[in-house]
Amino acid sequence: MTNSKKPEFIYLKQEDVIAAGGLDMKLALADVELAFKMHGQDEIIQPNKTVIEFPDQESGQRRYLTVSMPAYLGGQINRAGIKWAAESVDNVRRGDLPYGMDLIILHDLERAHPLAIMDGTLITAIRTGAAAGVAAKYLARPDSKTAAFIGAGVIGRTTLEAIALSLPGLTEFRIFDLNTEKSRSIAKEFSGRWPIKIVASVQEAVEGADVIATMTTTRQPFIEAAWLKKGCFVAAMGKNEFEEEALLEADLLVVDEWEQFKHYQPSLLTQMYQAGHLKDGDVLNLREVILNRASGRTTAAGRIHFLSFGLACEDLVVAERVYQTAQSMGLGQSLSLWDRPHWL
Amino acid sequence: MTNSKKPEFIYLKQEDVIAAGGLDMKLALADVELAFKMHGQDEIIQPNKTVIEFPDQESGQRRYLTVSMPAYLGGQINRAGIKWAAESVDNVRRGDLPYGMDLIILHDLERAHPLAIMDGTLITAIRTGAAAGVAAKYLARPDSKTAAFIGAGVIGRTTLEAIALSLPGLTEFRIFDLNTEKSRSIAKEFSGRWPIKIVASVQEAVEGADVIATMTTTRQPFIEAAWLKKGCFVAAMGKNEFEEEALLEADLLVVDEWEQFKHYQPSLLTQMYQAGHLKDGDVLNLREVILNRASGRTTAAGRIHFLSFGLACEDLVVAERVYQTAQSMGLGQSLSLWDRPHWL
Repeated sequence: MTNSKKPEFIYLKQEDVIAAGGLDMKLALADVELAFKMHGQDEIIQPNKTVIEFPDQESGQRRYLTVSMPAYLGGQINRAGIKWAAESVDNVRRGDLPYGMDLIILHDLERAHPLAIMDGTLITAIRTGAAAGVAAKYLARPDSKTAAFIGAGVIGRTTLEAIALSLPGLTEFRIFDLNTEKSRSIAKEFSGRWPIKIVASVQEAVEGADVIATMTTTRQPFIEAAWLKKGCFVAAMGKNEFEEEALLEADLLVVDEWEQFKHYQPSLLTQMYQAGHLKDGDVLNLREVILNRASGRTTAAGRIHFLSFGLACEDLVVAERVYQTAQSMGLGQSLSLWDRPHWL
Repeated sequence: MTNSKKPEFIYLKQEDVIAAGGLDMKLALADVELAFKMHGQDEIIQPNKTVIEFPDQESGQRRYLTVSMPAYLGGQINRAGIKWAAESVDNVRRGDLPYGMDLIILHDLERAHPLAIMDGTLITAIRTGAAAGVAAKYLARPDSKTAAFIGAGVIGRTTLEAIALSLPGLTEFRIFDLNTEKSRSIAKEFSGRWPIKIVASVQEAVEGADVIATMTTTRQPFIEAAWLKKGCFVAAMGKNEFEEEALLEADLLVVDEWEQFKHYQPSLLTQMYQAGHLKDGDVLNLREVILNRASGRTTAAGRIHFLSFGLACEDLVVAERVYQTAQSMGLGQSLSLWDRPHWL
């Protein structure tokens, strides 16, 4: 920085994020696993998300949403940052913009100014899939052969890639979406890497599967507990695919961060907790398993469910790598808070 | 927007914010008063700030700080946004950057993408002063003649301008700062508008003043209650200038938002509340006075203290005006989240 008074930073649009490795799922898996480890080692400060919801006047369903997710990554990283997310059902209806769109800001702590502002939409999709992949690595049976993917949207795609990379022993990949075209698109994209079979029903996908990943926007449960194979691992990245019974009958419930779940009403897990059907000791944080402080899979027959809330530290650890790569490649647009500060 | 898939927004550096009217205190006073009114009319959604503090290992005093302040402005404005603030004592030591540096993001709710990202450092200083000015308008004696300003930093400067504009009957302006050079700089800047007298001590400034505004970084109280004139109005924009007794003996305590004060430990008011020395009914929100739902000044002899927490809605309402002006003037740098979205 030639002029110390000029707080420069870079802006990375989505194309820059991609050029800097934002789509690299192998790296994202390592990033997110690191975030979980750091979190367990108290190297992360991560307040609860702040959600502002704008329900539809008629349906009462949420229509718009903003979420602020600040966090601090300590350890060797030492970076403050925030993801600022917005969601709009209008975008889905129109079809020209993603449902959720995100910005990520990385901050220099000592100098208190931004280092990077970047599109966080792509990183959100990547890190969400990566969290499912990390959970699968620690919680699925190592001899898992068959995986079922329910929902073939953006998160469905990233979750499939992450789980396929995390469990290299998988040989059968089934996918189902109400919109077959979406399933076809994913099968085609990954055709050189994994044999993905489009199946005709949820039941056909789920029955006999060792790994089941769900990422739909349903408001009604549609997966029956009776379809689930003994010893299977379930990554529930959507919110409502399973009935309460399916969760209560599971041998182990694991989440990314129970403390945040407890405060977020729309989650089924939260509702179960508030109704007294679950207590604190019934749900395990994934980081405890990763750090070997708690047992994850102890029997071949146990059914384990992983539920994801989505954490700021996952976003920021990926964003930090993307930022470092972008810097070394000279990517992005240089901006500054000012040329000369009006006041000091 | 020619390409609906390309979510464009503008970046406004501080020079753009200034060119778009960011320094205009008259407009900022109207903005902040509007924000208080909207807040009182339930047109604002404003979760508590999320603060991450990094205390110094040796002193235990905070060294770095990040604050995320999301809010929604409803009514005719209908805008979501966030201020993301960071503070570093290192900047003060080095002297090349402000203590606090801020970004403000304004969001289109229906399309869920940013409309503007701008320097929020200047707006933070302006709106903080403006809040003191609005409070003075409603709580100071209308016949106030003499004003004392303790602290001649950036907030001292904006507070002086705001109070001087809000109380046009003021004829005597006293200023004190440990650093006389700073007082001189403010006196010189405003020399054509208001006669500002640099005084030699806090006591000399405060005694006999009808309006007292404090904005220092002191950790120790230094203003004695005995110095305060009957009927005076105090705007305490700093945190620790007054002893608890001075607050307890006041005839009325008014804040910008009691709900947020109650949760923020570093505030003396919060500590008094937690110690049971204050109860909920003892503190009034300024918006209640502005909307005529509660009495502010009822007697000429009453001493009224206003304490400021600083609210996201104050930042966003100023930022929204600056954004609209910048748009109409064609200011700022055009950016986009992407040229074409990788995923929809």
